[in-house]
Amino acid sequence: MIKKISFIGSGNVATHLALAFQKVNIKIIQIVSRNEKSGKLLAKHTNALFNSNIKNLLKTDLIIICVNDDSIASVAKQIPDLPIVHTSGNNSIKIFNDKINAGVFYPLQTFSKETPIDFKTTPVCVEGNNSSFEKKIVRLAQKISNKVYSINSEKRKHLHLSAVIASNFSNFCYLIAKKQLDSENLKFELLKPLILETAKKIINTNPILTQTGPAKRGDKKVIKEHLKVLKDDNYKKIYKLLSENILKEYEK
Amino acid sequence: MIKKISFIGSGNVATHLALAFQKVNIKIIQIVSRNEKSGKLLAKHTNALFNSNIKNLLKTDLIIICVNDDSIASVAKQIPDLPIVHTSGNNSIKIFNDKINAGVFYPLQTFSKETPIDFKTTPVCVEGNNSSFEKKIVRLAQKISNKVYSINSEKRKHLHLSAVIASNFSNFCYLIAKKQLDSENLKFELLKPLILETAKKIINTNPILTQTGPAKRGDKKVIKEHLKVLKDDNYKKIYKLLSENILKEYEK
Repeated sequence: MIKKISFIGSGNVATHLALAFQKVNIKIIQIVSRNEKSGKLLAKHTNALFNSNIKNLLKTDLIIICVNDDSIASVAKQIPDLPIVHTSGNNSIKIFNDKINAGVFYPLQTFSKETPIDFKTTPVCVEGNNSSFEKKIVRLAQKISNKVYSINSEKRKHLHLSAVIASNFSNFCYLIAKKQLDSENLKFELLKPLILETAKKIINTNPILTQTGPAKRGDKKVIKEHLKVLKDDNYKKIYKLLSENILKEYEK
Repeated sequence: MIKKISFIGSGNVATHLALAFQKVNIKIIQIVSRNEKSGKLLAKHTNALFNSNIKNLLKTDLIIICVNDDSIASVAKQIPDLPIVHTSGNNSIKIFNDKINAGVFYPLQTFSKETPIDFKTTPVCVEGNNSSFEKKIVRLAQKISNKVYSINSEKRKHLHLSAVIASNFSNFCYLIAKKQLDSENLKFELLKPLILETAKKIINTNPILTQTGPAKRGDKKVIKEHLKVLKDDNYKKIYKLLSENILKEYEK
């Protein structure tokens, strides 16, 4: 059983995970981070030791690597063969092919330092390079989340892609909308209840049923008027492409 | 003061508005609707009279037209010159240019029959063709909402455009994500906490600050991998265009 964990990295994912584990009495041994400020702070909050040098890694039941996608491989190479997981949606488990017990622990959520996360409802997608280790990390994940899924690297890549579309792209739609309002001295405040309700709606149903708007209704007159009102050429292209696709989707 | 209201139409907007007014003791006189089923139901819930023929419209303090955008003008022509508003974001107040007291009462929200709406927090954007009438509908709106804004037709068009981008387009992103998951036999359930959190995040901040993801980080390697994984050519185009625009936005 995994009782002691160390983290490499002290960003948002490391912070939220370490705090969630601490709450269920899993001991955080060490925070290893090049960022002294956030690393020391997280170590303090979790009663862990801080070290800025990866060479000083202590023995532990599990190492969780929470660094940028591009740095995972090089970090993994520098450390001894202890049980290890990364938290990336996009990276394969193969990145650890020289380790005996390795895996992935991917919490599917958007983390920001200020906002507390309810980990119980956060899906955690796990994968192990052998079944006994996978069982161990499933059990670990179940201590903090009620939604633990075993998902292999290939499927996880699709999942990560879907997450980018659902989360990053919808945030970018909010951003375009805000800029449009700014240009007319209208407050973004006006859209917030709508944005929240649009997201809430899909919880009990399905985005295919909740689609509304001019493109869904096939109202080409309104689409034309909107394109006239929209000044930015790039945003015009986005409006056009998305509307065309919604039209196609509901013409079927 | 407006004490008695009749509705033309019995769809989602009419239903939510009529119920909200009833709660604050504004009398609903009549529901006039070609849809007998939903019209009678709404009349029953609001202790109003039902009529399917617009010729039988009774005298009242205000008529609220909640019909499709394209039908507002023709409906308005068929009725006597009573105080009147429509609830459309996109239509100008000019559609009522032959009426003495006319205006717009645009609740900025997405309504569905099943989900109750907290009207107190729903922005209502109003406009009147004269200041005394506008004051009356402002006061009426304030009875159901704490967020009443006077916004003219031109600005409202921009607002409606922004609402389409923020709400309809983000819902379409959820839809694409779901289809991507479906094709891999992954459950849409997995994305729901992420979608909700992404929307919640902008409540206390700004979508420019909450943007995350490969395009925001300038991670072209992941973008390339995602484009390889994404099979549908139309969705590929959308992924590409949105990612390019996010890259541009944060390169600035």
